[in-house]
Amino acid sequence: MLSKNTLKFIKSLHQKKFRKKENAFFVEGSKNVTELLLSDFEVSLLLYTEKFLEENQSALKRFKGEAHLVLQNQLESTGSFQTNDSALAVAAIKPNILSQIQDDELVIALDDVRDPGNLGTIIRIADWYGIHNLLLSTESADFYNPKVLHASMGSFTRINVFYTDLESYFRKSKKQIIGAYLNGENIHEVKLLPSGILLMGNESTGISKNLECFITHKITIPRFGQAESLNVAVATAVICDNFRRK
Amino acid sequence: MLSKNTLKFIKSLHQKKFRKKENAFFVEGSKNVTELLLSDFEVSLLLYTEKFLEENQSALKRFKGEAHLVLQNQLESTGSFQTNDSALAVAAIKPNILSQIQDDELVIALDDVRDPGNLGTIIRIADWYGIHNLLLSTESADFYNPKVLHASMGSFTRINVFYTDLESYFRKSKKQIIGAYLNGENIHEVKLLPSGILLMGNESTGISKNLECFITHKITIPRFGQAESLNVAVATAVICDNFRRK
Repeated sequence: MLSKNTLKFIKSLHQKKFRKKENAFFVEGSKNVTELLLSDFEVSLLLYTEKFLEENQSALKRFKGEAHLVLQNQLESTGSFQTNDSALAVAAIKPNILSQIQDDELVIALDDVRDPGNLGTIIRIADWYGIHNLLLSTESADFYNPKVLHASMGSFTRINVFYTDLESYFRKSKKQIIGAYLNGENIHEVKLLPSGILLMGNESTGISKNLECFITHKITIPRFGQAESLNVAVATAVICDNFRRK
Repeated sequence: MLSKNTLKFIKSLHQKKFRKKENAFFVEGSKNVTELLLSDFEVSLLLYTEKFLEENQSALKRFKGEAHLVLQNQLESTGSFQTNDSALAVAAIKPNILSQIQDDELVIALDDVRDPGNLGTIIRIADWYGIHNLLLSTESADFYNPKVLHASMGSFTRINVFYTDLESYFRKSKKQIIGAYLNGENIHEVKLLPSGILLMGNESTGISKNLECFITHKITIPRFGQAESLNVAVATAVICDNFRRK
């Protein structure tokens, strides 16, 4: 039986401080929950509707944690979605550990990307372009924010994130660090190995001054009209697409 | 003196039905308001703070409509921004007229793109890539929705939009119509003149079945990882970037 305390616990996970304290986060909606159940995240709790049960019988059978059949309005009053007719799951936050990065691998680093929608979209883009590791400055949006997970459309299960002080990290790194600027080399023309670190800056202020000295290549997306800039997630995708060209 | 009726009038413009009835919309924030004042939109009303006055004296001098110096909290309680320390302006909606489209011009058509953030981001992308005309299906998000204008970052002043029934429009068009699909030709390899119409589909359901017969070329952004799809605004940018390559 689903207790009031359990619902209160899930609701607390809307806030970063409680996610940190409980070392747990929640995920909503059919796409994200089914991806979560297939991933290596430790899922402790699952709330699901009749509809989710019908569509995901085998996934539910395999699930060994605490599971409750609930009504749609219970999901909606507990989670962050206005409409949720499928499921909500609680899982453990992974430890903040840097994965082994290969020499020929491309990694995305984000310098204070604050908007959860942008971070989630970048996670989805990374997953599309076969990028497995994200480095996030400590001031970046929280990976486990429900808006981040939602915007990632399930891709959060396939991307490793590592929160770190980028300045200290770059100081020790021997990789090429490619920074996205408005006045760098044209990405349609520049010849770069698609490896190392692609650094994207904050939505308003771009790449921090203290990181500039570590940049080995400044690049720019060529502009053909009059907009001052592109959204950071959009720019990340365009640059990744250029890197993945043969 | 700023009357209660004026504030009530602006507040009514949060809703599409009142924007339509009054043939007016509002714009908020320094970037969007200064771009609006420089554009060919007819601006009838301007609310501005001391801060905006200090930073935009010459623009304010040129402005001949009704203008009121207000407090930040008046802007915030009237508009849609949680924080607005600069300005809010009301302007007239432009008539829904299709501009003359050149033979070598690239136009973006959106088939029921419903999310205002996506539409605003696409407007900004179009403006970056020198695209001047957008065709929008009648079910697409409203161009004058405050969230659309905000996400466009001022670019809404430089893009012409035309709402139309795309099926009827395509039936009469002689241009090439390039549709973004998940199973088309690889845009890194396909040779296409960067002109005609680029059609992007709805966030969940893609391009409508009834429009498929008008598509002259199906294209796809190559995938290198496991995400099922890209966000529609992100995909629009990547395709435009490929079209703008020499």
